[in-house]
Amino acid sequence: MLVDGNQIRPIWLDDDRTTVKVIDQRQLPHRFVVADLTQVDEVIHAIVEMFVRGAPLIGATGAYGVMIAALNAGLKNDPMAFIEKECRRLKAARPTAVNLAWAVDRVLAIVRTAGSVEACIDAARDEAAAIAEEEAENCRMIGVHGAEIVEAIRHEKDRGPVNILTHCNAGWLACIEYGTATAPIYEAFNRGVDLHVWVDETRPLNQGARLTAWELGKHGVPHTVITDNAGGHLMQHGRVDMVIVGTDRSTHTGDVANKIGTYLKALAAKDNGIPFYVALPSSTFDWTMTDGVKEIPIEERSPDEVRYIQGLADGQLTRVLVPPETSPAADFAFDVTPARLVTGFITERGVCGASEEKIHELFPEH
Amino acid sequence: MLVDGNQIRPIWLDDDRTTVKVIDQRQLPHRFVVADLTQVDEVIHAIVEMFVRGAPLIGATGAYGVMIAALNAGLKNDPMAFIEKECRRLKAARPTAVNLAWAVDRVLAIVRTAGSVEACIDAARDEAAAIAEEEAENCRMIGVHGAEIVEAIRHEKDRGPVNILTHCNAGWLACIEYGTATAPIYEAFNRGVDLHVWVDETRPLNQGARLTAWELGKHGVPHTVITDNAGGHLMQHGRVDMVIVGTDRSTHTGDVANKIGTYLKALAAKDNGIPFYVALPSSTFDWTMTDGVKEIPIEERSPDEVRYIQGLADGQLTRVLVPPETSPAADFAFDVTPARLVTGFITERGVCGASEEKIHELFPEH
Repeated sequence: MLVDGNQIRPIWLDDDRTTVKVIDQRQLPHRFVVADLTQVDEVIHAIVEMFVRGAPLIGATGAYGVMIAALNAGLKNDPMAFIEKECRRLKAARPTAVNLAWAVDRVLAIVRTAGSVEACIDAARDEAAAIAEEEAENCRMIGVHGAEIVEAIRHEKDRGPVNILTHCNAGWLACIEYGTATAPIYEAFNRGVDLHVWVDETRPLNQGARLTAWELGKHGVPHTVITDNAGGHLMQHGRVDMVIVGTDRSTHTGDVANKIGTYLKALAAKDNGIPFYVALPSSTFDWTMTDGVKEIPIEERSPDEVRYIQGLADGQLTRVLVPPETSPAADFAFDVTPARLVTGFITERGVCGASEEKIHELFPEH
Repeated sequence: MLVDGNQIRPIWLDDDRTTVKVIDQRQLPHRFVVADLTQVDEVIHAIVEMFVRGAPLIGATGAYGVMIAALNAGLKNDPMAFIEKECRRLKAARPTAVNLAWAVDRVLAIVRTAGSVEACIDAARDEAAAIAEEEAENCRMIGVHGAEIVEAIRHEKDRGPVNILTHCNAGWLACIEYGTATAPIYEAFNRGVDLHVWVDETRPLNQGARLTAWELGKHGVPHTVITDNAGGHLMQHGRVDMVIVGTDRSTHTGDVANKIGTYLKALAAKDNGIPFYVALPSSTFDWTMTDGVKEIPIEERSPDEVRYIQGLADGQLTRVLVPPETSPAADFAFDVTPARLVTGFITERGVCGASEEKIHELFPEH
């Protein structure tokens, strides 16, 4: 996508075809820094420390991680055993992210049949690149299908822009290109639809305020940053026409795991009769789980993510401590929105209702 | 209440009986600074700059402001005219704070009948002290009535503490003693009930993380700071037994205006069958409005309250900018929770359901 006139992705392969480049998203919006990944430990670090985040990007990073494992396997006694072990470490980097295990396993399956270490490296590189391209194309199609919903709401409204609320960053920074939740926004905006985005700041890590606002601003999309507390009030007063969020994992019965706080917005949307859409590539569906609230494991992260907030002070990236030094804090990363609160899923193949029946109708192969 | 073993209120009269002392709450939890108020300009500054906040405390501060006006009236040609003028300035310090005008007018009415300047000073001092004591006593009784609910939940539970979620700071810092939402917590804790408080940080100004966590910590009450996004997830997983919040204004039909985000917690409590209580002195009921969502005006404050966050960095109070410099933000201060989501009101007179009928049953004089 466009950043100051340049086409940029959040991950790409350097000209040397061995170094993986990623935007260090922790430093956005105040610093644009690119990190080089040449070791599996660096890949894991980039995933755990959230240089990269968002299901599709974590998947693509994990996929390129397999290539990096293969690049470092040549001097090992049993290169394939080494690669398998590194893949297990990669998959453990973020347990809630279903795309990570999916992408690593997909590349690993190809690598297992490749033969020589050189062939493993080439196969992993090609497969990782293919995954990235597929993610970009999926997001483009999500945009095409979702834009039709935005346009339909525009036609129903007497006047004013279509006000879309989104939570967290399910943008191109998370997804190679277009994003998932943002894809319908970019596509509709590019078609000339009058729209405005309410950007939930998305505590604790403020990916909305930091990343979604930055993305939308760079693309010229009208938007306003709000606290996570504000959405219900705006919905009560007719100032939200639709909600679009992404998801880290959705069950094939329609339950949606996404950034903590998504469930609260879904409740408010339901209470006010506002459509609540979840945008995702179908790879984010979990075809085995049936009860998201009970079954999807919710990652608990470091309390310091709640206690400290990063921003710019005197031109320097600075972390400030908000609560008393001695007060404990807890950091739950995701929550699960039950299917009954979801209007529909916007996928690369089209839009479907949030039920096992409707999801399987659109994806009969599962 | 207890602060490092000392009984402290957020406002008190110094031994000289002329200097008013207030905690500068802007600097909590990282600095405990007491400000001396001896001039009306200083009182106004403390109210405008939010050294003091919370309806009861603003009222008490304004009341003591009348005493300070009287103390400075002795050398004026027309002391009473001077006091009247100063009272007008006091009431204008926060024009939307109903308690401020109410308390200033109440003290002024007594002063007008006092006679000599000395008598005016004594009358103002006594009336201001009476207002503070009445607020404290109301909060104490809210605690007594609310603690019974906490104890009842404790008896129903098999094991573990009663987990109480609260939003914002409706604590003693806002209310002279005990607080409103926190009064049942302190009272139950003092009775030895095993309990734990989930403290919503409460963006944008983080009064939960900064003030409620500080209060509870100083009193030794077990608590955990969470993001405003987390409550729904905790409720889904049985980790919240009840919610208690305060209110800035509630209609006599049961609709509750409180800090932005309260509505979202009420929706989640309803969705998970968790009792949602609102604690308030009956002076906070608005006996004229019937539809809170439509009628209660919601203050929109400076976007910089959303864009900048204050905390401690390298031992210094520091403000950091979170979103891109160029992204607009909006700051809605309150929202309204409809009566249908409220389990009951905890008042100084007892507990009642959130309906016009039940509220008037408890307060038949209105």
